[in-house]
Amino acid sequence: MDEVKIIEIKQSIFADNDREADRLRAGLKEERTFLLNLMSSPGSGKTTTLKRTVAALKDELRIGVMEADIDSAVDAQAMAQTGVRAIQLHTGGMCHLDAGMTEQGLKELGTADLDLAILENVGNLVCPAEFDTGAVKNAMILSVPEGHDKPLKYPLIFTVCDALIINKIDVLPYFDFDMDKVVEYAHMRNPNLKIFPICAKTGEGMKPWIDWLREQVNTWNAGE
Amino acid sequence: MDEVKIIEIKQSIFADNDREADRLRAGLKEERTFLLNLMSSPGSGKTTTLKRTVAALKDELRIGVMEADIDSAVDAQAMAQTGVRAIQLHTGGMCHLDAGMTEQGLKELGTADLDLAILENVGNLVCPAEFDTGAVKNAMILSVPEGHDKPLKYPLIFTVCDALIINKIDVLPYFDFDMDKVVEYAHMRNPNLKIFPICAKTGEGMKPWIDWLREQVNTWNAGE
Repeated sequence: MDEVKIIEIKQSIFADNDREADRLRAGLKEERTFLLNLMSSPGSGKTTTLKRTVAALKDELRIGVMEADIDSAVDAQAMAQTGVRAIQLHTGGMCHLDAGMTEQGLKELGTADLDLAILENVGNLVCPAEFDTGAVKNAMILSVPEGHDKPLKYPLIFTVCDALIINKIDVLPYFDFDMDKVVEYAHMRNPNLKIFPICAKTGEGMKPWIDWLREQVNTWNAGE
Repeated sequence: MDEVKIIEIKQSIFADNDREADRLRAGLKEERTFLLNLMSSPGSGKTTTLKRTVAALKDELRIGVMEADIDSAVDAQAMAQTGVRAIQLHTGGMCHLDAGMTEQGLKELGTADLDLAILENVGNLVCPAEFDTGAVKNAMILSVPEGHDKPLKYPLIFTVCDALIINKIDVLPYFDFDMDKVVEYAHMRNPNLKIFPICAKTGEGMKPWIDWLREQVNTWNAGE
């Protein structure tokens, strides 16, 4: 299980992250590669969701995945089993990725032959929301056990995301989770947020999310 | 519901956090107040666990609670209903508390007449682990839905904690959570970590945790 490439990324040297992120995005546009930044709390199901997403799209899109973690390579190993290119980024204790750090990862991953690159950010609802990684779109996962009040407590991440995946809907009967309320609170933060309730474990509800992502990728890569 | 005191804490001015934390702890020792720093991911059940903890101990200990959050006052409101003194700390986007920020909170809470002050840290497994808040003991909650691999992915927080509460054991049948593995992984990080499996919602398993905390408080406040 040691065959996964592990990259030790360094803290960014760029003072102006937003400018760096814009530059990175422009390069991706030219190269016709879409970058998705996926964020969430620890344990909300990012890797399982990505495995299903990759399985659904890998025959029509060339996909590469960067798994960011403070330590361990378990996620990149899981992802490599899906047959797509996957590397592990070690952040050396850093709680988020910025554009410079993302660029280091993209260089190691190699994006020239990819339609879709996915960054699985560090599990954290706070810091990753503060840094533009250069991604074309941001998505986040909130899982049912975390509770429907999270948009009240972690406002920024709901504001900066384009898509909100609500995972683990299979356990809705066992938790006091109010789907109407989470939609209301999330749209208070961001009226344009697309919301996709899913169960990554069983695959329930995946299609609308996959369709949305495919459309984003194809639109971007068509140069529109 | 607006009667809860909300404190906007400022970023710490202290360059040397460890020294500041030691100074804060020495002051608490002199005052015979025990400070517990409780950390976890978002949605792992910190507030529910604290409500039960406070209910079990409030007749024998004088308790005050600081609820740190980026935004909202829902936790302090919930805590105030238990009848103990509770204030809300707004971190203004900061992803953790350091000793200087904790001290600002303690001053507003008022500790002279307290046996036990509890800091509910920002929901985040990464950054809070890096900063000594001045607490006498650190505890963390990992909830069953987050998965048993978390000590592999977020090593530092398991290293710096004295107690690990494993919450939401009522939903063990619905998740692939291996209790033996999480104990093994957590003890790899920290052989001295005390582990308490509980269900804060029902109260199951709370007694060993309450007994441990009571003993810590009484030992500290006895000046031993």
